[in-house]
Amino acid sequence: MYDVNAIRADFPILSREVNGKPLVYLDNGASAQKPQVVIDAINQAYSQEYANVHRGLHYLSNLATEKYEGVRAKVANFLNAGSEEEIIFNTGTTEALNLVSYAWAAPRLEAGDEIILTVMEHHANIVPWHFLRERQGVVLKWVDIEPDGSLDPQKVIDAMGPRTKMVCVTHMSNVLGTVVDVAAISAAARERGIVSVIDGSQAAVHGPVDVQQIGCDFYAITGHKLYGPSGSGAMYARAERQAEMRPFMGGGDMIREVTKDNVTWADAPMKFEAGTPGIVQTIGMGVALDYMTSIGMEAIAAHERDLTQYAQSRLDGLNWLQVQGKAPGKGAIFSFTLDGAAHAHDISTILDKKGVAVRAGQHCTGPLMQHLELNATCRASFAMYNTRDEVDVLIEALELAHDLFA
Amino acid sequence: MYDVNAIRADFPILSREVNGKPLVYLDNGASAQKPQVVIDAINQAYSQEYANVHRGLHYLSNLATEKYEGVRAKVANFLNAGSEEEIIFNTGTTEALNLVSYAWAAPRLEAGDEIILTVMEHHANIVPWHFLRERQGVVLKWVDIEPDGSLDPQKVIDAMGPRTKMVCVTHMSNVLGTVVDVAAISAAARERGIVSVIDGSQAAVHGPVDVQQIGCDFYAITGHKLYGPSGSGAMYARAERQAEMRPFMGGGDMIREVTKDNVTWADAPMKFEAGTPGIVQTIGMGVALDYMTSIGMEAIAAHERDLTQYAQSRLDGLNWLQVQGKAPGKGAIFSFTLDGAAHAHDISTILDKKGVAVRAGQHCTGPLMQHLELNATCRASFAMYNTRDEVDVLIEALELAHDLFA
Repeated sequence: MYDVNAIRADFPILSREVNGKPLVYLDNGASAQKPQVVIDAINQAYSQEYANVHRGLHYLSNLATEKYEGVRAKVANFLNAGSEEEIIFNTGTTEALNLVSYAWAAPRLEAGDEIILTVMEHHANIVPWHFLRERQGVVLKWVDIEPDGSLDPQKVIDAMGPRTKMVCVTHMSNVLGTVVDVAAISAAARERGIVSVIDGSQAAVHGPVDVQQIGCDFYAITGHKLYGPSGSGAMYARAERQAEMRPFMGGGDMIREVTKDNVTWADAPMKFEAGTPGIVQTIGMGVALDYMTSIGMEAIAAHERDLTQYAQSRLDGLNWLQVQGKAPGKGAIFSFTLDGAAHAHDISTILDKKGVAVRAGQHCTGPLMQHLELNATCRASFAMYNTRDEVDVLIEALELAHDLFA
Repeated sequence: MYDVNAIRADFPILSREVNGKPLVYLDNGASAQKPQVVIDAINQAYSQEYANVHRGLHYLSNLATEKYEGVRAKVANFLNAGSEEEIIFNTGTTEALNLVSYAWAAPRLEAGDEIILTVMEHHANIVPWHFLRERQGVVLKWVDIEPDGSLDPQKVIDAMGPRTKMVCVTHMSNVLGTVVDVAAISAAARERGIVSVIDGSQAAVHGPVDVQQIGCDFYAITGHKLYGPSGSGAMYARAERQAEMRPFMGGGDMIREVTKDNVTWADAPMKFEAGTPGIVQTIGMGVALDYMTSIGMEAIAAHERDLTQYAQSRLDGLNWLQVQGKAPGKGAIFSFTLDGAAHAHDISTILDKKGVAVRAGQHCTGPLMQHLELNATCRASFAMYNTRDEVDVLIEALELAHDLFA
């Protein structure tokens, strides 16, 4: 039995008010709130168990190392990776995708080689590939979405040609909520010797992920969206791909030996983790993953499906509001515009007065906004702790906004 | 009046025991402990004030953005930078120096161009330059230290030739405690059109830093060594140099506009800060800097000078122990070997039994270890909260170790 009130009680910030109203936090697509167990773990780490990792032999360093390295197995388990050596720690999806760009793609792709993207990618899954276009003449091939916001995997597969080296696709759109059939795309890529890179920033929050079933080469997740600390993250990177990657950042921990004339590298995944890492953030991310799995990813997904259906039905009742993206099976993310509102920012400002936190803007998806012919949208993005009552508050606040703009 | 006991009371971990003995934490060169105000700030951020920054317009996002961006002025003030636009946030010195390597040096340096380093650099200030050697034929020129561990700035200046493009020097050795005259080196570099990169990871912890007085182009600091959270850091980067830098990591926040065919960049320093940043870590780093400045960097430096002299005199009394580095004005870092000890690790293990946390190994300084003809050293590194009594505990523990190995 999914007890949303018990879950809400685990998140201290959800008890606060904003502008004199109970906080209705619907900006989870940008970053999620943190349960007390995560905050407690951070507190405990800094108050009683802190030291640098890997290089010490004293008690606290060993303790911190054990807790930090223990998270690798938690992430591997969360993503069903075959081995914890396939998990690279980082600060989030942006760093992860830049690692793929600099360490795997840059030394390998030549002018005229192609990378396939969809128009609904987040800038984190666009700009690292634009670097390769600018700097070495790689060609970006864009696949459009359908009018309902869904992505036909066959269109991605049809775009794969003899010069295609990579396909970089989101598992769930941060604007439309569209869930992509990344398994079909990854399988087709693999058959053709094309590397598949999946942006799991949004998808991994909302339901179970199985990278072996997907069959991708890279899958990136972001700790702060997964109810974990800011500055935490991890990436699944298939062992064969790691073996092909040169280092990205240089420094401590990622080397075997450094001399004046030469440098040799540590084994993967350490080879890709330079310098003192985000020790406490990573420990906190591990606790957040434990928290999610203790509730159950299927249970979270079921709760959010209910929220999605309820929110969709309520929003459908507002004939002066346009929801962008109605793909079958979409996740609990709603981007919309409103008749008469000069700008999405105006809507979010009114909603904020009612305690409702939503995001307004381009959501780091320039090409998608151009495709939709919109300057910006308002976005309400839901999490495991949101409720139908909060949907009702959102709707009331939107009605107020509509009245004000009418 | 410097009240070290009051300061100690601010750090909860210093009250704990390790192996049944009071913790004597002398691994500060690797990472420092955190005062309660920093832990409280993290707690407050996650419990009451958390949201993603920059892109929101709701109350919590504005609040988090204000707190996060407010740290830029704190860092600028801490380093006496001319402008807060010259402060780039990052995860620490490793990322900072890789940014310089990828964003400034890689597109600019050609085969045969030279980078000057000293043999006592940390791997973070070596490996990013080895990348340029390996990948584009840049030549690394190494400057030796003197027998007492000091660095003659004239030797660095004499190494500057017509092909020299950069000089990358630590402000304080993490092994020898040597303080380098980076102002003399930076001034000579500037006269010759050579860019100066200063690794301030250690120095900024122990005394006041003034980047305008130093006159360098880049100065990197690491939050977790400055009593701040893991995964926090910042770099001073002279505005003229930022104007010459291309982006390093691509993603959200660092762009102006992204289309299918093109991408344009945000103004510096945002251009160099891709994706959701380490929001809470950066806020915590700001609190740590406030804490240090409230005590006073000169007062901290004076306390540590006393500790250095006392520790030096006590260690000098052990004729079976060799301290590496006795440069005049050195900081409170002591690396040593011990007659009869098979390996530094054995010493640190015995010290740990007495609650004394020191580091043993190469300290991420391969070339220095080769120069010293050592496999490893033990290192005791002091902080603002350490005491003469703790020096005595260290000495007793070392005497025990010596007895065991004799």
